[in-house]
Amino acid sequence: MQGRPTINDVAQAAGVSKSAVSYALSGRGRIGAETRERVLAVAAELGWQPSQQARGLSSSRTYAVGLVFARPAELIGADPFFAPFIAGVEAELSHHKYALLSQVIVGGEAEEEEGYRRLVSGGRVDGMILTDLRDFDPRIGLLRDLGMPYVAVGRPMQAIDGPAVSNDDSASVTSAVDHLADLGHQRIAQVSGSRALVHGLERERAFHRALAARGLYAGTVIPGDFTGQSGAEGMSALLGLSPRPTAVIFANGLMAIAGMQEAARQGVSVPADISVVALDDNPIAPFVTPALTAVHTDVLLWGSLSARTIMAWIEGESDTSDVTLTSELVVRGSTAPPPSP
Amino acid sequence: MQGRPTINDVAQAAGVSKSAVSYALSGRGRIGAETRERVLAVAAELGWQPSQQARGLSSSRTYAVGLVFARPAELIGADPFFAPFIAGVEAELSHHKYALLSQVIVGGEAEEEEGYRRLVSGGRVDGMILTDLRDFDPRIGLLRDLGMPYVAVGRPMQAIDGPAVSNDDSASVTSAVDHLADLGHQRIAQVSGSRALVHGLERERAFHRALAARGLYAGTVIPGDFTGQSGAEGMSALLGLSPRPTAVIFANGLMAIAGMQEAARQGVSVPADISVVALDDNPIAPFVTPALTAVHTDVLLWGSLSARTIMAWIEGESDTSDVTLTSELVVRGSTAPPPSP
Repeated sequence: MQGRPTINDVAQAAGVSKSAVSYALSGRGRIGAETRERVLAVAAELGWQPSQQARGLSSSRTYAVGLVFARPAELIGADPFFAPFIAGVEAELSHHKYALLSQVIVGGEAEEEEGYRRLVSGGRVDGMILTDLRDFDPRIGLLRDLGMPYVAVGRPMQAIDGPAVSNDDSASVTSAVDHLADLGHQRIAQVSGSRALVHGLERERAFHRALAARGLYAGTVIPGDFTGQSGAEGMSALLGLSPRPTAVIFANGLMAIAGMQEAARQGVSVPADISVVALDDNPIAPFVTPALTAVHTDVLLWGSLSARTIMAWIEGESDTSDVTLTSELVVRGSTAPPPSP
Repeated sequence: MQGRPTINDVAQAAGVSKSAVSYALSGRGRIGAETRERVLAVAAELGWQPSQQARGLSSSRTYAVGLVFARPAELIGADPFFAPFIAGVEAELSHHKYALLSQVIVGGEAEEEEGYRRLVSGGRVDGMILTDLRDFDPRIGLLRDLGMPYVAVGRPMQAIDGPAVSNDDSASVTSAVDHLADLGHQRIAQVSGSRALVHGLERERAFHRALAARGLYAGTVIPGDFTGQSGAEGMSALLGLSPRPTAVIFANGLMAIAGMQEAARQGVSVPADISVVALDDNPIAPFVTPALTAVHTDVLLWGSLSARTIMAWIEGESDTSDVTLTSELVVRGSTAPPPSP
């Protein structure tokens, strides 16, 4: 080893990750007492001094939590998840006088990584909330390297050393399929959201598993993109199939409501000819005609629990375990038994 | 004058407001060169030194803009304005590598003032965006006293020395009334949002002015609260009147869609028996049946312009003038001529 020892040297000598060194230093995060002592002993032996910046992070609080949105602003504006989630995060943070530091990043992975570094470095936030998880998300490693507490919103595909607060997407889809199967439907289709996101993939897999569990044939999946336009197009494509599905599960309420309008336009009656379910519960869902059967997730609570979890890690509580929310199917007027053959 | 001179002493001696002293010191904001020189001369004469904190504010950038929401998180989650506005703010800030520091404040005016002080002091933000303006809003004076650049979203009732970015609410209501009057409606009612907010009051006044301008009698105004429930109740109350209004203007799309459902439930047909217009354009509006006629405001642009205006002030550009957006009535299926008598 030459020159001043680095965090890498300490990590290597102690046989732990860089993040473990950071956590040992800050006294927070998921690290056992024994590991922490070993790391501190090795650091002392090597004469390692954490950088000024890292010391700043560990000794002073900013009372701010960071959130990066790596997608176009237009999509955020139209996403019914966004507002109640942020509201739930803010409500919980405000009880502890924390603020939310958020930033939209436009561009590729390089811009996104730079955006994370910008928020995280310089001691601007005490922890991060990660949304829109992707398969083997590179941000997990980035935050680990930076020694920054985080909470993953949604269940990541890789093992992580931070907590996750997720909705049981598989249970949501299964409740929709079971409701339709109980009504007697045998040809159930899905109009999906984006497959690029973990929860989109998870929902598609759960759809096929749930159909198989009820002894039903694999259902048609039409890819959508969360817009009303894609909901109408999905319904139109399904109405052209022969035999036609008798029930459709849409990724969100906007798509489902647009799909119902398209069915009406083609003279197909909901729910007499075709049943419709949405996988989120738009505030407008109870007020359309027929009222929309939907899987209700308490997104405000999801935001609150995410904020509570990241604050628990920041404040050094040892119990920052995973949290799973369960959704509830709200049966309204858009589902009924299939038409008799 | 005893002891160390304060900003008040300088303001009094120079015959200007405290904010003018702050602006003169920081070299930004709306202050003429002559006033600035006079203030600096008086400050030098009195031996006044700005506090460390004020110096910090003027010399270093945080590259963050602050936003406080002084209302319950639940309302933010359900408000279709919130998500696109934030998205527009974030999109514009991100181009200049600014972040948004936001906080929900729950409680009364004391908590709100403390929340503003918390975000603004300690150099956490370079400027503030003020939403949900009230009559003679006390926050304007607070920010002036703190010497903090700000932009008012909506037109305040008092004269302010900062810029405002507003939608022309009066024009929005007038376009809805004119459309209905052109179709031949003579009994036009309104189901309003909250009267506590400036734009609620403004819309109600504009409603009465627009009716008078068309030679129509004053219309009934039923107070609502932006929820679907209040939209349904408002419609129900109006359907009980005799003679019944032939057209209703709702404060938002959620209320209008719920109102249409209530009309259908009572066997009243939209638009054959009663026409419906919403004063915002919900993403679902085109997809309900009948599709909802609505006043469309580009809320994303509103957010962008607000961010651009506050950054211009922060960065010392002299041209931080007021901006007014204009909305556009989008005629869809929920409006038609009134039923023949």
